[in-house]
Amino acid sequence: MAKIGKLTILLLISSEKEEEGFLKKVSDLGYKVCIGKAGTMDSREIIAAIETTAKREGIFSAGCYREEHAVYHTALSALKGLCRGEVGIGNFLRTVGVKFVILRGPMDTDRSDLGEWISVGIYGMIGAPIKGFEHEAIGLDINSI
Amino acid sequence: MAKIGKLTILLLISSEKEEEGFLKKVSDLGYKVCIGKAGTMDSREIIAAIETTAKREGIFSAGCYREEHAVYHTALSALKGLCRGEVGIGNFLRTVGVKFVILRGPMDTDRSDLGEWISVGIYGMIGAPIKGFEHEAIGLDINSI
Amino acid sequence: MAKIGKLTILLLISSEKEEEGFLKKVSDLGYKVCIGKAGTMDSREIIAAIETTAKREGIFSAGCYREEHAVYHTALSALKGLCRGEVGIGNFLRTVGVKFVILRGPMDTDRSDLGEWISVGIYGMIGAPIKGFEHEAIGLDINSI
Amino acid sequence: MAKIGKLTILLLISSEKEEEGFLKKVSDLGYKVCIGKAGTMDSREIIAAIETTAKREGIFSAGCYREEHAVYHTALSALKGLCRGEVGIGNFLRTVGVKFVILRGPMDTDRSDLGEWISVGIYGMIGAPIKGFEHEAIGLDINSI
Amino acid sequence: MAKIGKLTILLLISSEKEEEGFLKKVSDLGYKVCIGKAGTMDSREIIAAIETTAKREGIFSAGCYREEHAVYHTALSALKGLCRGEVGIGNFLRTVGVKFVILRGPMDTDRSDLGEWISVGIYGMIGAPIKGFEHEAIGLDINSI
Amino acid sequence: MAKIGKLTILLLISSEKEEEGFLKKVSDLGYKVCIGKAGTMDSREIIAAIETTAKREGIFSAGCYREEHAVYHTALSALKGLCRGEVGIGNFLRTVGVKFVILRGPMDTDRSDLGEWISVGIYGMIGAPIKGFEHEAIGLDINSI
Repeated sequence: MAKIGKLTILLLISSEKEEEGFLKKVSDLGYKVCIGKAGTMDSREIIAAIETTAKREGIFSAGCYREEHAVYHTALSALKGLCRGEVGIGNFLRTVGVKFVILRGPMDTDRSDLGEWISVGIYGMIGAPIKGFEHEAIGLDINSI
Repeated sequence: MAKIGKLTILLLISSEKEEEGFLKKVSDLGYKVCIGKAGTMDSREIIAAIETTAKREGIFSAGCYREEHAVYHTALSALKGLCRGEVGIGNFLRTVGVKFVILRGPMDTDRSDLGEWISVGIYGMIGAPIKGFEHEAIGLDINSI
Repeated sequence: MAKIGKLTILLLISSEKEEEGFLKKVSDLGYKVCIGKAGTMDSREIIAAIETTAKREGIFSAGCYREEHAVYHTALSALKGLCRGEVGIGNFLRTVGVKFVILRGPMDTDRSDLGEWISVGIYGMIGAPIKGFEHEAIGLDINSI
Repeated sequence: MAKIGKLTILLLISSEKEEEGFLKKVSDLGYKVCIGKAGTMDSREIIAAIETTAKREGIFSAGCYREEHAVYHTALSALKGLCRGEVGIGNFLRTVGVKFVILRGPMDTDRSDLGEWISVGIYGMIGAPIKGFEHEAIGLDINSI
Repeated sequence: MAKIGKLTILLLISSEKEEEGFLKKVSDLGYKVCIGKAGTMDSREIIAAIETTAKREGIFSAGCYREEHAVYHTALSALKGLCRGEVGIGNFLRTVGVKFVILRGPMDTDRSDLGEWISVGIYGMIGAPIKGFEHEAIGLDINSI
Repeated sequence: MAKIGKLTILLLISSEKEEEGFLKKVSDLGYKVCIGKAGTMDSREIIAAIETTAKREGIFSAGCYREEHAVYHTALSALKGLCRGEVGIGNFLRTVGVKFVILRGPMDTDRSDLGEWISVGIYGMIGAPIKGFEHEAIGLDINSI
């Protein structure tokens, strides 16, 4: 049994070397998956990077508003998790350097009756705009798509 | 190199079988660590479970307000991450069943100059008070202690 | 042309006499629709009333988690709109007496290509627990289902 | 009987053709009223458009801080309702195209003893910066003035 | 020159011995003023104590909804300031022991043209439900009345 | 007995003439202290002014991330208190002109067992970008350092 959130988290914290193997495993379990990075002080750039990557990698079809809407809200909520409450990056004088992972597929590989879901995870460093003055943060949200 | 947040997350998503090995590894890296569970509709019970477990397991000394204060705010922010914004469980008609992990030690095992930090992670299921109507969520915060 | 949000709002502010006509019109446009009331100081009772009514009236099928999840988040966001920010009713020493309306169908009757959406609207009086010390408020959210 | 919030909402959702008749009716009931539009990714522009229109149309007198303060907070809370929680437009990578309505007069035309109130309503489309990728939203707040 | 907020804060942090003199001074400047205390884990009890004290001490007249509404929102915003963001006391497993001060009168004793304003200040200790495990906090809001 | 929060507030509301005497008193009580000003529509500038002043005045040592992290979060929470909830200045079409005070030392001069704490207070005027259209606000937070 594998769950969409745990798989997202595993990919988020995997090293570049581990990623290849995990990506194959996740694909074999029936998920569409993509990975990207963003380093920014602007919250909109994180959401934009997630949407653009998901679209380009075929996680959702570009012309489908319902799917874009699901991805958008999942990314926004993951960002709220990363910020631990109110969304604030540059306006809070901090910067982030993050990896994000997007999965589309079963909520749980043992439960084929639940339909398709989208999971967005964001993990990385958040902190002052001073080298080394930062710590880790993670955000995750899951929605039906 | 190991980071306090990634170690917390690894423990959060590890199975019971994997936990024993990870706990030893984390201890060997110089961390104090403890793990607990909470199933509730009441946000204060999650914070209480984290504080009580951390105190009982010696993560911080019971009589030390500065340390209790650091653990409290780290737990509260991790809960905000779990809730992806405003804290709401029972008052939002949802329930959680979560595992939590608390680590105390270096922010990064390669950086001995940063002093001691506390990491609180919460991971599990959040959803309607109906069996199976729930999905995964995660929250994490890190503070100096 | 009719839009799901505007129809929801029209039903919310219609008198009991007008409701019957509007309900028929909305049904004829291809929407599943239901209406309910809640008077409470407890935020969870508003969400529960919306979910229960929607389930009983066949807006979504009781055993389907994806649909329940969409209705839940739409109701929660409508409640955030009603509260104009942070959700607070009894804990903010205020009480609400509201009507709610749930629609399921096209986002826009002219756009058959967008699939099915759910709209939850809440409208009524919010105020002190003193008769007459209250004013109107409205909340609305729309999601794919 | 007519209520300030319901009148505001009726004007918000009325078509351009219906507006003229409604405006006269609302004026006859003893309200000062004005209507405007804003299309933007910047939350401050919505507040500025509401304040500027209200001032120009004589809803409040330009030199009166108490009244400007009441209009400001009513507009800000209406915006929180529109955003269903935390205020975020461009910083959440979304854009809005809205109509706003401002009424000043009795809270309820049957209750002359309650003094003057201000109502600000905002209604329109919110969504991705992609044509057609948007849905309706509404926000309303009412304060004494 | 004296300002309503600064006077409120001075009263909040004055000792019992200093209070009497300050109260006379504030009265002589043309303010209605009252002081109260609350110790609780329930946010609604703080708002209720403020409203009840203000009503009993004649800060606003009991039957006047516009004035009650102004006091209510001022108290709620002062509480948000005290909690530094989202309102949470018992639900965040913390307790407060606070003094509150309510002033009604000029915003600034040098500016007679601004009409009457209400100021609510809350100051005291917030912390764990363990003796001595608490620190100071303050909240203040000001509105026209 | 003197408390870190009350001393911070006293300095915040003291006139320029009173400041000198208070600063000496606070120093004699064993606190590191500094004072600054900021006038801006940009929330990050307030945080930056506080951090920069604290660093320059030796409140914390520039190369120490744990201390910078404590000052940052204390400043951010004080700003949330000033804004009475969600942080918003320019994006809410308002501007602030504030004084800030930073203290480092005992939480309470009678309790030498609690270690060192940091207190950040912000006090001043918040309002419309129109001269005289503003009122007072205050924010305060306290953390271990």
